[in-house]
Amino acid sequence: MRNIKLTVAYDGTAYHGFQTQAKLPTIQETIEGAISKLAKTAIKLQGAGRTDAGVHARGQVVNFRTEINIPLDKWPLAVNSILPEDIVVLKAEEVAEEFHARFDAKGKTYTYQIYSSPIASPFYRNYAWHVPVKLDAAAMDEAAQVLIGKHDFSSFQAADTRYRDPVKTLLKAEVKGEGPLVTVTLTGDGFLYNMVRIITGTLVQVGQGKLIKADLSDILEARSRTKAGATAPPQGLFMQEVYY
Amino acid sequence: MRNIKLTVAYDGTAYHGFQTQAKLPTIQETIEGAISKLAKTAIKLQGAGRTDAGVHARGQVVNFRTEINIPLDKWPLAVNSILPEDIVVLKAEEVAEEFHARFDAKGKTYTYQIYSSPIASPFYRNYAWHVPVKLDAAAMDEAAQVLIGKHDFSSFQAADTRYRDPVKTLLKAEVKGEGPLVTVTLTGDGFLYNMVRIITGTLVQVGQGKLIKADLSDILEARSRTKAGATAPPQGLFMQEVYY
Repeated sequence: MRNIKLTVAYDGTAYHGFQTQAKLPTIQETIEGAISKLAKTAIKLQGAGRTDAGVHARGQVVNFRTEINIPLDKWPLAVNSILPEDIVVLKAEEVAEEFHARFDAKGKTYTYQIYSSPIASPFYRNYAWHVPVKLDAAAMDEAAQVLIGKHDFSSFQAADTRYRDPVKTLLKAEVKGEGPLVTVTLTGDGFLYNMVRIITGTLVQVGQGKLIKADLSDILEARSRTKAGATAPPQGLFMQEVYY
Repeated sequence: MRNIKLTVAYDGTAYHGFQTQAKLPTIQETIEGAISKLAKTAIKLQGAGRTDAGVHARGQVVNFRTEINIPLDKWPLAVNSILPEDIVVLKAEEVAEEFHARFDAKGKTYTYQIYSSPIASPFYRNYAWHVPVKLDAAAMDEAAQVLIGKHDFSSFQAADTRYRDPVKTLLKAEVKGEGPLVTVTLTGDGFLYNMVRIITGTLVQVGQGKLIKADLSDILEARSRTKAGATAPPQGLFMQEVYY
């Protein structure tokens, strides 16, 4: 059996998230279907992370085991020829037998796009959160630095998901403005459920002058979801890269 | 009666082009419907140009006459609150009674996006032509300069539309590469049917090394559609700006 790792990009607009659900179209089921068709046998794949409905990926990683002997460089074109156009395999690698896309991930980068302008753009409606005011991206970037390091991120975790260890290490936090587009980039060893979206919702309050940098320290220390800002909507979120 | 000019952006993916057609969703019909709902009476609008099915606009211009007295700065939000998210009014101006969006247009800029990479992007599938090889954007840019000036552009006109004057003046032609994205920008006093898409299809042959700059002069002089390259697909085309 070969263990194949694929790097995958997708537009999540039409899907009910990554993870297979009965009777609803998902990314996982669609990729499994395409590979199973190629392999002529049912394939089960592991994903590095679950993305919610409407969330996108530029570098999701999946792996699966197969006996079929397609050369590595042919895998992307072969799978892409079956996949719909909104899911694309970018790269295929053969990995060690024990490799697992989720358990072996050492870190991830997510990006979140905000369209900051009084009037929305038809081209970003599925790829950004429209915030109808001009945001101060520099203030957001400065405030985001408070979150760098190893912390209990309970304040930035969806209220109904307290079962995981809330201590994570954030390695990089960056907010850049380019015209109306404000992009939040976060790299960490792991992320709690909705963490990127809640951090973004909080940073947007900083960008509007409703919170300042010192408030972010207080929110972090409070370890309570109620202290942070709103959860930014799913369509601005991109799983950018997974590190092993 | 006031004569109102709107600048409009739209994602043309879901529409059968700009111009109203029986039983098919079009941009014109959708905007007319929204304004008519506001005005509580049927409104007829003029567009600066017709865009085909799947073609987009960042700066289409329309005008219509109305007796309703919405302040100019409220028009975009008022119409946008009724329009679907893939059509957005960017700006409203009051213009002279005789202003006509199409007849008064002195020139237009179109852009055409090409995604030049072996593997497609799920995010450009509706906004670019996927050409699965690396294009030489500098060679395309150089060759495009041949087209600048006043010429008979018959070679770059859809074969079945010979009724218009084929002499147009191209004021600017630019091809820029940025990563996998190659953008063709053309500004002229007018464009023949499919002209931007046929010029792009021909320039892509230059970018692949199949044609050189001198071939473009020959194609232009031949005044025959059969000499030029293929018509690039609609989804890469954007009506960028209209000049008055």
